[in-house]
Parts: sequence; structure tokens; C-alpha cells
Amino acid sequence: MGDREFMSVALRHARLGAGKVNPNPMVGAVIVRDGRIIATGHHDHLGGWHAERAALEAAAAAGVDVRGATIYVTLEPCCHTGKQPPCSQALIDAGIARVVVGSPDPNPLVAGKGIRQLADAGIAVTEGVLRSECDALNEIFLHAIVTHTPFVMLKYAMTLDGHIATASGLSQWITGEAARRRVHEDRARFASILVGVNTVLADDPQLTSRIEHGHNPLRVICDTHLRTPLDAQVVATAARTPTIIATASANDARAQQYRDRGCEVLRVATDGDGHASIAAVAAALYARGIDSIMIEGGSGIAWSALDAGIVTKVSAYIAPKLFGGAGAPAPIGGLGVASPDDCFRIAHPAVSAIGDDILIEGGVDYVHRHR
Amino acid sequence: MGDREFMSVALRHARLGAGKVNPNPMVGAVIVRDGRIIATGHHDHLGGWHAERAALEAAAAAGVDVRGATIYVTLEPCCHTGKQPPCSQALIDAGIARVVVGSPDPNPLVAGKGIRQLADAGIAVTEGVLRSECDALNEIFLHAIVTHTPFVMLKYAMTLDGHIATASGLSQWITGEAARRRVHEDRARFASILVGVNTVLADDPQLTSRIEHGHNPLRVICDTHLRTPLDAQVVATAARTPTIIATASANDARAQQYRDRGCEVLRVATDGDGHASIAAVAAALYARGIDSIMIEGGSGIAWSALDAGIVTKVSAYIAPKLFGGAGAPAPIGGLGVASPDDCFRIAHPAVSAIGDDILIEGGVDYVHRHR
Repeated sequence: MGDREFMSVALRHARLGAGKVNPNPMVGAVIVRDGRIIATGHHDHLGGWHAERAALEAAAAAGVDVRGATIYVTLEPCCHTGKQPPCSQALIDAGIARVVVGSPDPNPLVAGKGIRQLADAGIAVTEGVLRSECDALNEIFLHAIVTHTPFVMLKYAMTLDGHIATASGLSQWITGEAARRRVHEDRARFASILVGVNTVLADDPQLTSRIEHGHNPLRVICDTHLRTPLDAQVVATAARTPTIIATASANDARAQQYRDRGCEVLRVATDGDGHASIAAVAAALYARGIDSIMIEGGSGIAWSALDAGIVTKVSAYIAPKLFGGAGAPAPIGGLGVASPDDCFRIAHPAVSAIGDDILIEGGVDYVHRHR
Repeated sequence: MGDREFMSVALRHARLGAGKVNPNPMVGAVIVRDGRIIATGHHDHLGGWHAERAALEAAAAAGVDVRGATIYVTLEPCCHTGKQPPCSQALIDAGIARVVVGSPDPNPLVAGKGIRQLADAGIAVTEGVLRSECDALNEIFLHAIVTHTPFVMLKYAMTLDGHIATASGLSQWITGEAARRRVHEDRARFASILVGVNTVLADDPQLTSRIEHGHNPLRVICDTHLRTPLDAQVVATAARTPTIIATASANDARAQQYRDRGCEVLRVATDGDGHASIAAVAAALYARGIDSIMIEGGSGIAWSALDAGIVTKVSAYIAPKLFGGAGAPAPIGGLGVASPDDCFRIAHPAVSAIGDDILIEGGVDYVHRHR
């Protein structure tokens, strides 16, 4: 095995912290000597050991000597004291001879300091091994820590002719089982899931993750005029799974009815189109530690988010099917852009097969819009 | 070089007949001895030598001995006398020792006979080398000869959110230069190109191929009520590039105005939706030797063709852009299917990158619909 293979093992260990370490990143570490793995570790839960420390402790518990060994770690070791003492010093103290790093520290103020400290202590450092895989693992953390805004993913499923439902409004199902399972996995890794009230009215969804032992994201309904039915599933189950109704309505009596059923009502200003401002909702969520939002519909809310400039990434599932229908809805509605040159571009889209469906994902390039 | 590499060279030679051999298939041949190419040939034009004969003649002209050599041919050699004497006999007479074949003969009544004749003569035969590439080269020929209907390709370009234009109707441009060039290449290999009258009214397109020395397909406008403007580009240039107006209208005076400008007016019955029947148009075109139709819009005609069961293949270009717009059109409109289970499925979609755009292509699976 070479550097990439060992880093790949470290990535697998990092994923064991999925859903348990937020808002920390997932990190995995593998200690190798003479081409053999002698210890592994990962950041398991918020407040728990960092991955490097976990691997060193595992080695100590097994009575394995790590002096002169190489450690593979998916994220640059920290060099500051947070909830845990700095990992860079722990590696130096343990006599590690070489450190191989995946992602650099995302915080521009501290990036590189951990590596410099290691190098100053005479440790060989290799950077950027499987970097894109390591970056992808923590796309939410890496975005939020730099921008101080939530990572917002706009997810939709459409046919190859661009419809998210038939002309009569039926949408079950567009994609196959593998794609739907992937969406549930995404729900488990996102801190919140957001839909517009029209999606609640049309589909009455639960918006929970059906992944076993998966965490359920906070549910957020954008509902400008408080039209969510009191017997909607998201309201009926609010005591079990937290639900926020984000509204521009000043109707206190109506708001109290949601509160009585366990929902929180979040009042925000309206945007230029007269809807409850989705940018204000995103900011309010971030202020309370919500680092990620998955937008799951419908087409009106998708446009509001895109137009407000808050969408980080688009995740478009395309089923190899055709519905037709001049009245069948598209994934992104609203006013739309005025001319093709005003379009929102997706930077470096990645295409993959998920079962029989095709997934196209990429970041929205707001920076180069209108250039 | 191995079998696949030599077949790949034969494929390159086959393509030299593009646009000149219809309704014959494009075929290429390469003669190899001791791992070296000693002659090449291709079917160059209708009535010209078949590829095998062309290669044998090239070898003879160069004074090269082909006895004991191997010939690579993209399509099973014919064993019947058509415009040319049978190629299988020519290969036997020339003393060829081994024949490597790409596509089998598509005609189920004669398939395999050429190969059997070669094998009976003691020639070693290898079949199916680069078969999918060889089949793809002649997808039109292989379809038409078996089904006796034209190969109909529904082509469209949409954004990643399923729009073929902005809400205000602007569509220039959705895709990049590479994709648009590919469409012009397709126009050059199709016998006809078909659009609905609404596309003429909206875009006033020329519908010609801008490939240098490329052939221009026959232009067909589906125009139920003869609304095509007399000064539309397709009418104004009808003397140079043949144009058919397909209609259900009985207005002879109006029809004569198109004829006076060099157009042909084709009268067909109406379909269930009251439009000029596109199935009747396709049948009429096939009856006059048109083996292929590329449908290029708009969304109404796309639905009519899909619903009529005549679409062989869908070619969907997806630009990594988002338009939004509740009123922005989708590629396939019309009535649409009643429920998701009634959808039209694409069998084995192929995904490729064309410049910055993504092309998804595949056959429409009418056979397994509603199973």
C-alpha cells in the first residue's frame, strides 16, 4: 500500500464520526510502520479525542511503539488548544517521524501553522494526499468555517426532460431506490432540511432520515403566510423531531397554534418578492449553530434561495425517464433570469451514476456571474 | 497493435463515407500482415466499391500480396449480389486467411450467412470486435433496415434545471460551442431535420448544417394550419435547400404560395390531438427513402413524436447553468403522461462530456412501457 491507500483507510475511519462531531469536522488517522497499519483513530463525537490523539491512545493501549512511525491524517493537525490539547505537539512528543496530510486547515488565519510546527521539529510532512476526497468529506465544515454562513445544498430530482412531477402534480417516484437512499444519507449529514409551504401542502412529507441510527435534521418550513396545516406531518411530529416555521406573518394567534404543537415560529422580514426572506432564515439558523441546510423543494423556494445568493451547491438527480407536459413543473421556478447571459453557472459539475439515475453536482458560481 | 486497434483504424476509414453512402451503411476495411497495415479501403459513395473490395483493389494497385493476410471490416461482409458482387467470395478468391468483423449483418434474414461462407472456405473468423462502436457508426442504417421506419432522434438542449429558454422565451445560447458544433455534425449525417411551426415562428431558423462540405438535410416543418410565414428563412431558401411543409390544412391557395417559393406541401391526416400526424409524416418520408429524422423542437412537436411512438433515440444536451422561471419552457411539453408510472423510459443512457456541457443519449424503450 502507498500513501493514497493509507489515506483512503484514514478516510474510512473519519466517516465513523458522521453526524456525531458537528460542528467539528470528521477526521481519521492511521499510524503505519514498515508498510503495516499499527493503529487507527477517528474523531468520534463532539468533545471526544481528535483523530491523531485517538490513534496514539489506541497504539498505547495495544502496547505498540509509534516512535519513527508515519501517521496519515485526513485534515491538517491542529496547533492550538481548543476542547483538546494541540495535536501537533502530541505527534512531536510521541516521536512520529512523518506526517501525511489530506486537507489543509481551512481557517485562513491558522492554515499551515500546524504543519510548520511539525516541520520545525524535524518531522517529514507530505501534504495534499487525496485532498479532493478529504475536502469533499468535510465540504460543510470547510465552507462554514471560512464564510460564516451555512452550507446550502439545493437538491432536486427531475426527469431527463426537466420535470419534477407530471402535469397533474404526481412525483412518486422520479428516481430509483439507490438515489432515494442517497438522499436519506444526505439528510442524516445535514443539520437542517428546508422546504416551502407548497411542498408541505402538496406532499405532506415527514422530512426525516430513514437511515438506521441516522440523525434527523432540524426541519424548517418557509411559510410566509402561515398556511402550514396544523395536522401536517411536520407539525404532528414536532415534539419528536424539531420543526421551525419561518414566516413573515404577524398573526400571533396562528403562531401560537404551532407553538402549542411543539413547533418553533421564526419571524423574519420579507424579501423583494414579498416572501419570508430565505437569506434571513439562513442567517438566523447559522447564528444558532446550524452549519448546513438541504433545500428539498419546491420550485419556488429553490428560485428564492438561488436568487438570494445563498446556494452553495446544486445536487441534481436526473432519472432516465420522460414525462412531457407543458404544465409539468421544473425544479427551479419563480421569476427566473431575464436572459440566458444572466444565468447562474455551475462550476466544475461532477457527474456520477447512482443506480439507474444520473447525479450532477456542483457549486454555484456567484462570484463570476455577469462577468 | 491488436484486433481492437486495427478495427479502430477501419472505423476511421468507414467514416470517410459519411453523408455520401446513404442509404447504404458506412463501412471501412484494413488489411494487415505481420502486424502491419498493407492496405485500407472504405465504402466511399452510393454505387461505389464496398470497403472490402476497395481495400483489395488498393492492395492490387500497390502490388501488395494479400494471400494469408487478415482483413478487419467494420460490418459483416455481404454474401449476396446487389449493386456489387458479394464481398465474401472476393475475400475467399483473394486468399485472405482471417476475417475480423465488427457489426453483424443487421438483416435478420441473411445475418451470419457471409460469415458462414467464409468459415466454410477455411477462413478464420473473429466476430464482434469493437461491436458497440461499429453499431453506433451505423445506428441509422441498422435501425431502418430492420424496422422499415426512419431512425428518429429527438434532440434538445436544456439547462440543468430543465429549461430550453428563459421565461421570456430567449434561448441563445444554452450550450457551448462544442455542443453546437456537434449538432451541426449530426445535421450533416441525418437525411432530414424536423421542427414544429412554433419553432419557425419563434426563432426563424435556417436548419442547415454549418459543417464545411457537410450535406444539408431535407427540412420538414410540421405546420397543421399552414402558419409558416412566407418570408421565413426555411421558405426563402427552399430553392437551395429542399423544404417540406407537412400540414393537415385543406387550404389549397395557401399551399400554392409555399409551392411557388419552392417548398413541397405534404398533406397528412390529423392525430388524436388535432395536429398534423407526425407518424404519418415519418411514414411518408420513409416511403421516399428518407431513413433518418432529427427532431429539433419545440416542446409540442417533441411530445407528439414521443407519444406517437416514433422516437428511436433521445439526445439531451445539459448545460451546467440554471435559468429558473415558472413560465420557462421544458424540452417536452404537450399533454404529458398522466402518472409517473406511465413515463417513457430511456434504456441504457450514455453520458458524455461535450465541452462544458453534458450529453445524455439513449433509446426510448417503448417495448417495456407499462410492464
